[in-house]
Amino acid sequence: MKTQIESAAQGIVTKEMRHVALEEGVDAHIIRRGVANGEVVIMSHQHPIGIGRGLRTKINANIGTSSVAVDPELEVQKAIIAVKYGADTISDLSMGGDIVRIRRSVLQAVPVPLTTVPVYQTVAEHGSFRPITQEDIIETIRKQVREGVNSVVIHAGLTLKMLSMLREAQRVMGMVSKGGSLTSAWMIEHESENPFLERFDEILEILRARDTVLSLGNAMRSGCIHDIRDDPQSLEIRANAELADRANRMGVQAIIEGMGGHVWIGDIEKYVKYHKKIIDNRPLFVAGPLPIDVAVGYDHIAACVGASIASGAGADYLCYITPSEHLALPNLDQVREGTIAFRIAAHIGDSLKYGPSARDLELAKMRRRRDWKGQFELALDGERAREIHPQAKGCTMCGEYCALELMDRYLGVDL
Amino acid sequence: MKTQIESAAQGIVTKEMRHVALEEGVDAHIIRRGVANGEVVIMSHQHPIGIGRGLRTKINANIGTSSVAVDPELEVQKAIIAVKYGADTISDLSMGGDIVRIRRSVLQAVPVPLTTVPVYQTVAEHGSFRPITQEDIIETIRKQVREGVNSVVIHAGLTLKMLSMLREAQRVMGMVSKGGSLTSAWMIEHESENPFLERFDEILEILRARDTVLSLGNAMRSGCIHDIRDDPQSLEIRANAELADRANRMGVQAIIEGMGGHVWIGDIEKYVKYHKKIIDNRPLFVAGPLPIDVAVGYDHIAACVGASIASGAGADYLCYITPSEHLALPNLDQVREGTIAFRIAAHIGDSLKYGPSARDLELAKMRRRRDWKGQFELALDGERAREIHPQAKGCTMCGEYCALELMDRYLGVDL
Repeated sequence: MKTQIESAAQGIVTKEMRHVALEEGVDAHIIRRGVANGEVVIMSHQHPIGIGRGLRTKINANIGTSSVAVDPELEVQKAIIAVKYGADTISDLSMGGDIVRIRRSVLQAVPVPLTTVPVYQTVAEHGSFRPITQEDIIETIRKQVREGVNSVVIHAGLTLKMLSMLREAQRVMGMVSKGGSLTSAWMIEHESENPFLERFDEILEILRARDTVLSLGNAMRSGCIHDIRDDPQSLEIRANAELADRANRMGVQAIIEGMGGHVWIGDIEKYVKYHKKIIDNRPLFVAGPLPIDVAVGYDHIAACVGASIASGAGADYLCYITPSEHLALPNLDQVREGTIAFRIAAHIGDSLKYGPSARDLELAKMRRRRDWKGQFELALDGERAREIHPQAKGCTMCGEYCALELMDRYLGVDL
Repeated sequence: MKTQIESAAQGIVTKEMRHVALEEGVDAHIIRRGVANGEVVIMSHQHPIGIGRGLRTKINANIGTSSVAVDPELEVQKAIIAVKYGADTISDLSMGGDIVRIRRSVLQAVPVPLTTVPVYQTVAEHGSFRPITQEDIIETIRKQVREGVNSVVIHAGLTLKMLSMLREAQRVMGMVSKGGSLTSAWMIEHESENPFLERFDEILEILRARDTVLSLGNAMRSGCIHDIRDDPQSLEIRANAELADRANRMGVQAIIEGMGGHVWIGDIEKYVKYHKKIIDNRPLFVAGPLPIDVAVGYDHIAACVGASIASGAGADYLCYITPSEHLALPNLDQVREGTIAFRIAAHIGDSLKYGPSARDLELAKMRRRRDWKGQFELALDGERAREIHPQAKGCTMCGEYCALELMDRYLGVDL
């Protein structure tokens, strides 16, 4: 089997490329060219989706158990809710309970691509770092790929040198990436270089076999807005850019995580543009970013601001933040809130990338006509809009003194 | 009695200026200079607050009944909730029920300044436009000022010429300002020029007598992101700039509303900067702006993005948007959500205006130490954060695999 990038490089337009082209309203040859030069990746579970330059900004929803919160059925429900409200992909980050079974249930429950962070499962199954061998780490990736996950996150850009630099760095928050910290803990415990980096070619072979997308994790992202970009972070960005290039040359599609975490509002646009340049316009995956630290309980709203600016500046793929970020695993309502907040961010970002959308225009026309049904159909979450709108009374905001009605009556402007 | 701007012009530092200086951490002479040149206004109800250049961005919460939703006690509760969660001012926009009584209850219930839009009461009391005389309009302002409202909004910048231009303008949404449309309807019904403009000097006398702040309304703001800045809008901005100048010269403090409504994301920063320039850096009051139209039911989140950018670019004062915008009057929960969303926007805007805040740094330090109590105290809404955080289990997000704990253990970075 050829991977999408191998086909693209040979000038072949696959059925997946045609599907993505149709969905995005872009010519299939442009999709092929994007895939060939690594600017676009295509992930397929029940349907293919495209992520990258020139395409609609995509959003990912994280679900999954932790060691202290295990309810497999709830995680499946979270995945279903996230997809219902517009998540383009799901990441199952489970570290508690029967991880394989949870993943299988999620894969069956939702049609969208599924991502994992294999080191989570490896560590959860062993319970500590010492007994884990490099081979265990590779074997988890092999198994997960065989099970059909569509993308795996590995923190291969991280090195012992960066860890020693991090010890010296003047950071308030140190390292806040969970996958990064698990990988680091293994490296320190084993006094060994990064296992994902040492076995990188072997991992690429595993991924290429099923066209599983490589996602290069961002261990060194900042954990508060006062932690500014420092040497470990810059080094990891460059390392990941090189690894993505190696992956592409081996026929493996790659996404690069970066620029996420907590970033001062004045730096977001600049950092995204810089990062996209360093990675040769490959797909940039961003968590948040959060432009302030004090919005605890409402981090989905603060992150929506950061993610709107990030996607407008060129980020292709956003990882949602829910109201429970920094506090707890999200419940179903919080998954819904986080998903919608990031649909809003992606829509704002896209309206900057591609101009105001036709959907906004249509909704405005419905609003002008007081066509409530039409507005609910065009809203990102029409169900919520319907709940708030008091059907019997019309809009209670202005009652009989509706500006729109007054203007129609007095100015008689044509609709 | 001298107004703040009259005192400032004479070089007098009032006790209100000293209070604002203390609150803002700015020298009192700088406040005096700002008030003197019209860049800062001071509104006082139980305590004075400053709004304008160099000060913390302020937020306003709208409350009030409509002709079809009248529950006076609920409106008082809304005002209390809004202030509890951080509203700096309240606007009572009641058009239903006993408006005077509602306003009195609100004034008694909250310590922050209260704003009204007098034309609402005039129209609500008469029920139609024809019987309302210019004198009725002036008399409402006189009464409200005597009752102790701290600021009144009048749409004095609007002219018959702009209305005739609006008829020709290619707008989807026409005019969406309620105060603007009520004023317009009166003008059209009476075939008369703007009553607030014709009696402007008399109104200034009324306001000067009690140092009531003039807020110049923004009738021509756009109602959807496809309605771009057009001639009526530009003319109104310039007209309001001149009126503010007249007010200041008459010893009346002035705020100018503008740039609110629905604005394409790529235009917000530019428009705010342009508007601040046109109005000689006088205080700019912005509603929203909403950068997309499809976030119905979540307009507080979309507007938080617009308001963050607007305040970062120089807007001094933000009018909140709640989740019920475009659908209904807000309930108490929605008032809380809208207020917090705008506290977030103001905080993001201020972190762009003045750099990352010490409060964010302190919160990050508490987070690093897993000091939950400390985090809740520093959060914008610690109560909500506490509700989400499962006290018994610690943070369920990572459970025993907390990145921060792992890093402390393995990297041993000093706190």
